[in-house]
Amino acid sequence: MERLVFPFNEGNRSMAELLGGKGANLSEMISLGIPVPDGFTITTAACRDFLERKSLSEQLESDIEFAVAKLENRTGRRFGDIKNPLLVSVRSGAKFSMPGMMETVLNVGISPDIARELAIKSKDPKFAWDSFRRFVEMYGRIVCAVPASVFEEVRHQYLAAAKLNSPLDLSAEQIEELSYKFIEKVEFLTSRSFPMDAKAQLLRAVEAVFSSWNSERATLYRRRERIPTTLGTAVNVQMMVFGNIGEDSGTGVCFTRNPSTGESGDYGDYLECAQGEDVVSGIRNTLTLHDLVNLQPKAYTELKSIMSKLESHYRDMCDIEFTIESGKLWILQTRVGKRTAEAAFCIASTLVDEGLISIDEALLRVTGEQLMNLMFPQFDLSASNERIATGIPASPGAAVGHVVFDSKSAVDEAMAGKRVILVRNETSPEDLPGMVAAQGILTSRGGKTSHAAVVARGMGRVAICGAEEIKVNVAAREFSANGHTIKANDLISIDGGTGAIYLGEMRVVESTVSQYLQNSISPQKFTPLIRAIERFLTRADIVRTLDVRANADTAADCDLARNFGAEGVGLVRTEHMFLGERRTLVETLILSDSAELRTEVLKEMEELQYQDFLGIYLAMEGLPVTVRLLDPPLHEFLTDKTELSLSIAKKEANNQPVSDHEKALLAAVNRLHEANPMMGLRGVRLGVLIPELFIMQVRAITRAAADLLRTGIRVKPEIMIPLVASQRELLYFRGVLEEEIKSLLVDLDTTLEIPIGSMLETPRAAITAAKLADYSDFFSFGTNDLTQLTWAFSRDDVEHSFLPRYLDLELLPFSPFESLDQDGVGLLLRIAYDEVKAVKPHLKLGVCGEHGGDPASIHFFHQLGLDYVSCSPYRVPIARLEAGRAAVLTRKLITLDEKATA
Amino acid sequence: MERLVFPFNEGNRSMAELLGGKGANLSEMISLGIPVPDGFTITTAACRDFLERKSLSEQLESDIEFAVAKLENRTGRRFGDIKNPLLVSVRSGAKFSMPGMMETVLNVGISPDIARELAIKSKDPKFAWDSFRRFVEMYGRIVCAVPASVFEEVRHQYLAAAKLNSPLDLSAEQIEELSYKFIEKVEFLTSRSFPMDAKAQLLRAVEAVFSSWNSERATLYRRRERIPTTLGTAVNVQMMVFGNIGEDSGTGVCFTRNPSTGESGDYGDYLECAQGEDVVSGIRNTLTLHDLVNLQPKAYTELKSIMSKLESHYRDMCDIEFTIESGKLWILQTRVGKRTAEAAFCIASTLVDEGLISIDEALLRVTGEQLMNLMFPQFDLSASNERIATGIPASPGAAVGHVVFDSKSAVDEAMAGKRVILVRNETSPEDLPGMVAAQGILTSRGGKTSHAAVVARGMGRVAICGAEEIKVNVAAREFSANGHTIKANDLISIDGGTGAIYLGEMRVVESTVSQYLQNSISPQKFTPLIRAIERFLTRADIVRTLDVRANADTAADCDLARNFGAEGVGLVRTEHMFLGERRTLVETLILSDSAELRTEVLKEMEELQYQDFLGIYLAMEGLPVTVRLLDPPLHEFLTDKTELSLSIAKKEANNQPVSDHEKALLAAVNRLHEANPMMGLRGVRLGVLIPELFIMQVRAITRAAADLLRTGIRVKPEIMIPLVASQRELLYFRGVLEEEIKSLLVDLDTTLEIPIGSMLETPRAAITAAKLADYSDFFSFGTNDLTQLTWAFSRDDVEHSFLPRYLDLELLPFSPFESLDQDGVGLLLRIAYDEVKAVKPHLKLGVCGEHGGDPASIHFFHQLGLDYVSCSPYRVPIARLEAGRAAVLTRKLITLDEKATA
Repeated sequence: MERLVFPFNEGNRSMAELLGGKGANLSEMISLGIPVPDGFTITTAACRDFLERKSLSEQLESDIEFAVAKLENRTGRRFGDIKNPLLVSVRSGAKFSMPGMMETVLNVGISPDIARELAIKSKDPKFAWDSFRRFVEMYGRIVCAVPASVFEEVRHQYLAAAKLNSPLDLSAEQIEELSYKFIEKVEFLTSRSFPMDAKAQLLRAVEAVFSSWNSERATLYRRRERIPTTLGTAVNVQMMVFGNIGEDSGTGVCFTRNPSTGESGDYGDYLECAQGEDVVSGIRNTLTLHDLVNLQPKAYTELKSIMSKLESHYRDMCDIEFTIESGKLWILQTRVGKRTAEAAFCIASTLVDEGLISIDEALLRVTGEQLMNLMFPQFDLSASNERIATGIPASPGAAVGHVVFDSKSAVDEAMAGKRVILVRNETSPEDLPGMVAAQGILTSRGGKTSHAAVVARGMGRVAICGAEEIKVNVAAREFSANGHTIKANDLISIDGGTGAIYLGEMRVVESTVSQYLQNSISPQKFTPLIRAIERFLTRADIVRTLDVRANADTAADCDLARNFGAEGVGLVRTEHMFLGERRTLVETLILSDSAELRTEVLKEMEELQYQDFLGIYLAMEGLPVTVRLLDPPLHEFLTDKTELSLSIAKKEANNQPVSDHEKALLAAVNRLHEANPMMGLRGVRLGVLIPELFIMQVRAITRAAADLLRTGIRVKPEIMIPLVASQRELLYFRGVLEEEIKSLLVDLDTTLEIPIGSMLETPRAAITAAKLADYSDFFSFGTNDLTQLTWAFSRDDVEHSFLPRYLDLELLPFSPFESLDQDGVGLLLRIAYDEVKAVKPHLKLGVCGEHGGDPASIHFFHQLGLDYVSCSPYRVPIARLEAGRAAVLTRKLITLDEKATA
Repeated sequence: MERLVFPFNEGNRSMAELLGGKGANLSEMISLGIPVPDGFTITTAACRDFLERKSLSEQLESDIEFAVAKLENRTGRRFGDIKNPLLVSVRSGAKFSMPGMMETVLNVGISPDIARELAIKSKDPKFAWDSFRRFVEMYGRIVCAVPASVFEEVRHQYLAAAKLNSPLDLSAEQIEELSYKFIEKVEFLTSRSFPMDAKAQLLRAVEAVFSSWNSERATLYRRRERIPTTLGTAVNVQMMVFGNIGEDSGTGVCFTRNPSTGESGDYGDYLECAQGEDVVSGIRNTLTLHDLVNLQPKAYTELKSIMSKLESHYRDMCDIEFTIESGKLWILQTRVGKRTAEAAFCIASTLVDEGLISIDEALLRVTGEQLMNLMFPQFDLSASNERIATGIPASPGAAVGHVVFDSKSAVDEAMAGKRVILVRNETSPEDLPGMVAAQGILTSRGGKTSHAAVVARGMGRVAICGAEEIKVNVAAREFSANGHTIKANDLISIDGGTGAIYLGEMRVVESTVSQYLQNSISPQKFTPLIRAIERFLTRADIVRTLDVRANADTAADCDLARNFGAEGVGLVRTEHMFLGERRTLVETLILSDSAELRTEVLKEMEELQYQDFLGIYLAMEGLPVTVRLLDPPLHEFLTDKTELSLSIAKKEANNQPVSDHEKALLAAVNRLHEANPMMGLRGVRLGVLIPELFIMQVRAITRAAADLLRTGIRVKPEIMIPLVASQRELLYFRGVLEEEIKSLLVDLDTTLEIPIGSMLETPRAAITAAKLADYSDFFSFGTNDLTQLTWAFSRDDVEHSFLPRYLDLELLPFSPFESLDQDGVGLLLRIAYDEVKAVKPHLKLGVCGEHGGDPASIHFFHQLGLDYVSCSPYRVPIARLEAGRAAVLTRKLITLDEKATA
């Protein structure tokens, strides 16, 4: 029989899979001798079982009963006992932290009788009835599914009848009376009696917390964070301690270092006479941790000591929830703290300096996504935009957008293509969709540990919290700030790094991180962040085995890529050289009947490409440059069929003359029209049909290389043939190209080896790669097209038709165009890799699809054993970092394996 | 050192790979004691080496010299010797017979001196100089590449100057003089002296025959017959015997049975005083074999005895070339004879009756393609079309077409979509492209063994030869026949089974074979052909392990399929049920904003489909019916985008009112437009987005089944989900369907198991089939789409853009849409099969793409181990036959393997 319940003193930190992160850490703290209220954890396995059978098993119910009995013995209190009651909290706790996404019920086990006794014992009737009121409200909302607004409405009516302004003004008796009104309303709405039996309360609360795993917001969050939906949550049942017994009680949240910058120091929020959720919800503005020095000196000293102990123990910055009950400190939870990208780099680097972790361990603590966030543009502070207010900088970055005041508007406007800033008094989990959709979040209330701040940091959204200078009027859809009134749809700019709020759209400039990465910052000006980034990128470059190249089509792109650390160009898309003004050349080529004219146009094209390649080779001197021959179908260079037909039809209808050119163009467009151009006449097929077009390209590639070579410039061109599907096709077309190169080199009197490789982008090429290897000097996986063909997903079409719905329904864990589908497309890569290595072990294999810049995909490519990834220039540093991390991870796995076999 | 030359007495029949078919059979006949002129064979390996190095190797030249020396010893004649000359023929001979496709040079080793001596010795100067003239003309044409028309022109001028009408009237001296004129012309055109050295003649002739392997017509023939281009041809050098020494000499071709019907009897052509090519070229009309009874009684008796010996030895109908030199019979060649489809069945069956071969061996001698030819329609003899002439029925079938008089016109008109009949005096290998393009061939000269007849039979074209009643005037582009004049482009109908030529387009009716296969012929009327077909199909049904189902969308299709022997329906394309008038229903569904209207339309659709399924189930009672849910994108049911845009624009321009309906339609068309619909919103994806459409289908499928079941009709519906790409998608959508079926069956109070399977048509589905197997009750490969996606070939597009060019260049051996690409797409099938069998060994796997009816593909599917193929109804008998042949072949292979290991 699987064990479904673990008392805190029987678990430990390594059991997060089963006990969830929170449960495992509670157990760990108990073993460290930290004052944690006693309790037990119901496992994630129990949750999975519950979600499948949709009810608690008899086994689980009896295990819980047994665990409660043992808890009663350890605490000396009894569940449901009036004289000496045991009250508990019931909290979710999944393997991966999902802050605020699931439910918590506090004060479970209470009843009016117990509250009455509690009032007498504590000599604090207001605390006792407030605890009861909290329970009723939470239980009603979470277990009985009565909307929060119902309670707000009842409270509002009660206050109005009592002629009171604030709930804080209610007396103990009034709170008791209000609680009964809540109960009455819940019973009316649910047609069930409100349970005052402790055991029933507990079991229903456990069920509700389990069920909250599948709530809409938890599901949405998991999808964003790529947390598997099959894990389930554990539930922690913990003896209540009370931060709401008078002034010498309170509750707080702290970090062992600043989660925005990584600096050491007091960092946290505290609220007197409050229970946990009050801090996080941001309803009341909080005191700082430092205020505790005077308010609770003993508890403060103990807390500082525990913070230090936990950071050393976890060897990382920790996030801690605590409660002080009548001067006595209790730790309710700890975990490795969420942090900003900047803090992640700085903390990891500092921990190395402090000798707590190794440089490779530190490298695993920072991610490419964080580095990418740091590369985002910043506001240009020399701009003239008026600063209208300042709040607490809660999640860094620069965001510009139209103001919206609710989650739904944020989603709607964003769907319509607008950038939006979500402005709220405070956010709650219900606001999550809007926060995902928004560029940034601005709240007038709450601290750095409020829901808005924590969630925004987690998802890399810009956020300013607790901006007390602004007054938000959601009903009127406006906010005021120091004399300004900003209405819905007005543009504002917010700086999550400084807390500054500006009117209008503010100019953005390159971030200092981005400037550093392009070598355009002098070492004297290096900040701790820059130094940390330098440290980790240097380490990554040392350990990684995957080369990083860039996809670049112009000399300017190449310069950028090289500054970012690219070790070559993995993909020059030559068709990009025929867009804009040069498009007419292709048009002329297609329309011309005259061989002379065609030759002339090809000559002109060759000269243009020759110049293009000269620039690219110069920028990449000494590094390989893979030039892909023309890939798209010809009609992509012509006007759209429907558009052209309509324009000609209109002219005809209006008796305007239709030129011969237009007629010829329409004929060509109709002739070249394809039902599925993605799978039509393009790439090597076009080369077979119109070899002169590709010969022109190969001449330009070769001539530019030969000319530079003669002046002593080291050039390393490589030619890549797109859309290859069979060996015969490759053999034939390679022959056409080689013949041209050979005779051209004779004419130029130059010796030059130009490797010719194949792009593996059709499923057939992947599974027959061993055969293509006979005539390929290298391979590059075109994972974009390979993904389209393997799934039968036309990217342009499906991203707007069914892909969003598929993501909603979790039929896809993520878009296979953003991150490589390792089980499907990845399997084709693996087949190709194994086949090729079996026949040509030293053949170079790379990736030049967009996945080359995606962290998860990079790890896959590393594990597969590829030689390089090629990505957009801005992704190069990210790819370098992730390739380094992948190498460290692989080494770690090897070490673990060695241990296992030793 | 590889051996490059084999004397005839050192080879045998099993060496066709190396010696070619002709060489191997010559050796075999020598060992049987049949009178074959002595000689030697140069191997195909030598040819491959020559084609690569583009010259004869020194090794080969010396081997040939050595073989000539040995031949001189054996024959007692000397090559180039004036007194006792050895003359040889140099003939091609590939592994697979390619009649008339490659070159032959006769009388090699002759010179004016030798001819002069030959004239004296033979006392037949005309024969001697004619032999010289033949050599000069053939060598000039084949080795020196001087066009045949040049010789015609020289001959024409010479005859005119000599005031003669026919070359037959030339005296020996005149033939000698004409030969010198030929030599003069060749030397002038080639600027080289004409070689009179025997050895030089031989080596150049060998080179020319090797080179003819890559001639255009040989290449075209190989592509049609799917003969690999890498094989190369052998060359046979054989002592000349002369059919042109006077009246008691001659040459002929015979078959051991009638190659059109398989009947026994004398069957062949004979020409007095002639050399080999004269018979085949059809220039002179021939005598029949039977005429030899009186002309050459001794030779005739010997020939009949050899024919019988060869048929017994080869255990098959043989085709024999012979020459009678001054009364002495020589056999020049034999091979298993080409035959019509009808003859193939009849001969194979007769050979079984005669105890020469087993029934399974006989099954391997007939093909699905032959059966298909026999199923082609025949002329309705009750039609009133006038019969204008009758020729020799040379290749059976009914053809209707517009008359053309040359190969190029045939190709051009056929490309333009016209059916054509190619009319010639005789055909030559140059006419091959036109013969391929034409429906039928009609010649005024030549017998059943003429080029036209042999080639037409080989490629299944209808042909009538030697129609002496017609006079063809190619220059005037017309022919006359019994008072009628038929001009180019006039319609005629020709019956290759009877030799009848009709005016105009004649009505066609179902062939008797087709009628038999549909059970609509009474056994009393069975012909020998029908009995043979019955015999082989019965045997095939016994031995085959592959089930044969049909793709059928209507009850009528199902009836047809079932008559043809289908064991179920493997694919009901439900979208076909919404074409025609019902298309508007889909349109209404797409355009409607009103939920009520949509429900109403869906209701109506459900009723229509319900009726459709009732009919299908009834027709297939007791057999499985696999219904594929809606597959194509919705916009396929709407008007074309450009067309609609244009029609609306025109109305607007003319100030005509544009209806709201048209506007809504245009909006819908634009909204649903996709860049690559093949890979867009279709199949299961549409089901996820618009479940009600698919629920409607599933309701109709279930209701129709339940209703019939209740009346005692046995129904076996299966539901197939198209375009599945991932397990999650399948799991989700299957759930949607199952829920509907379950609740519907409760409503209907019926118990009914409906298997739900997946169509494997995306590469991802194939490679992750093991995962899909968790939620699939069966699988069916959709090889059409799988081929499109694996190659990135959009069928509609590439068949008109690059596929023809790819076939021309042999970059593809055949269209992967016609026959399965076994190396690529087949590999995906193999991966899927292995994966699935590893997890669910008993899961049913079938194929429902068009490849299900293609013989080569059926053999692949059988070898792979699939459970069934599904093909169009008319292909069902073909699939049955081929599945049986595949089973016999596999068994044979197993037996061979057992021998190998024993």
